[in-house]
Amino acid sequence: MEEQVDMVGRAFVDHYYLLFDSNRASLSTLYQPTSMLSFEGQKIFGAEDIAAKLNQLPFDQCKHLISTIDSQPSSTSGGIVVFVSGSLQLPGEEHLLRFSQMFHLIPTPQGSFFVQNDIFRLNYG
Amino acid sequence: MEEQVDMVGRAFVDHYYLLFDSNRASLSTLYQPTSMLSFEGQKIFGAEDIAAKLNQLPFDQCKHLISTIDSQPSSTSGGIVVFVSGSLQLPGEEHLLRFSQMFHLIPTPQGSFFVQNDIFRLNYG
Repeated sequence: MEEQVDMVGRAFVDHYYLLFDSNRASLSTLYQPTSMLSFEGQKIFGAEDIAAKLNQLPFDQCKHLISTIDSQPSSTSGGIVVFVSGSLQLPGEEHLLRFSQMFHLIPTPQGSFFVQNDIFRLNYG
Repeated sequence: MEEQVDMVGRAFVDHYYLLFDSNRASLSTLYQPTSMLSFEGQKIFGAEDIAAKLNQLPFDQCKHLISTIDSQPSSTSGGIVVFVSGSLQLPGEEHLLRFSQMFHLIPTPQGSFFVQNDIFRLNYG
């Protein structure tokens, strides 16, 4: 059980940042109308507005480098919380930006997962 | 609704770190037998073992300084996910340690909340 949660968490993280870095528009498929994103303190509701926000970020290309992934079952009916730390490389920027991000994944009837909660913060200092 | 979630998240965070910094043994009351803690990648299950882990951390006094708190409803029956970033000041240490931590709070029948998921990471780099 524990191993399975870790595997799902890692597979999701790999998939999420691969899409983010190579085909950001397709991230919308991972959210649903009930989803929420907190991006640097700004709250955005629903797959459509979340996808719009992610696609309007002021950089075209970026690369996420993952440092740690922690996953736990979220108690209810197969949900998983995933906590990620890593670095973000922006085009033409020498310095990496450190970030932390958490996802709450909820199973779909189709046997996959969608992102119910997504909280992103850059780490300063 | 949104405001209430933010208020609960902030009140919980204030309470949690106040207990942590002034009376760490009493943190056990915030967890239940189903609770999970991931502490720097180490997984600990259940209120008893989590309390033991927190009380055995290799420092007596510490002070948490909170930088950001992001809270969202976790979809199911009144749960709340809370994401915290801040700094940890250890006794005799000049440098602050940056950390990120997430909590998944579940309502109790008594009208309070307990911590179902707790993931803690120091931010390096």
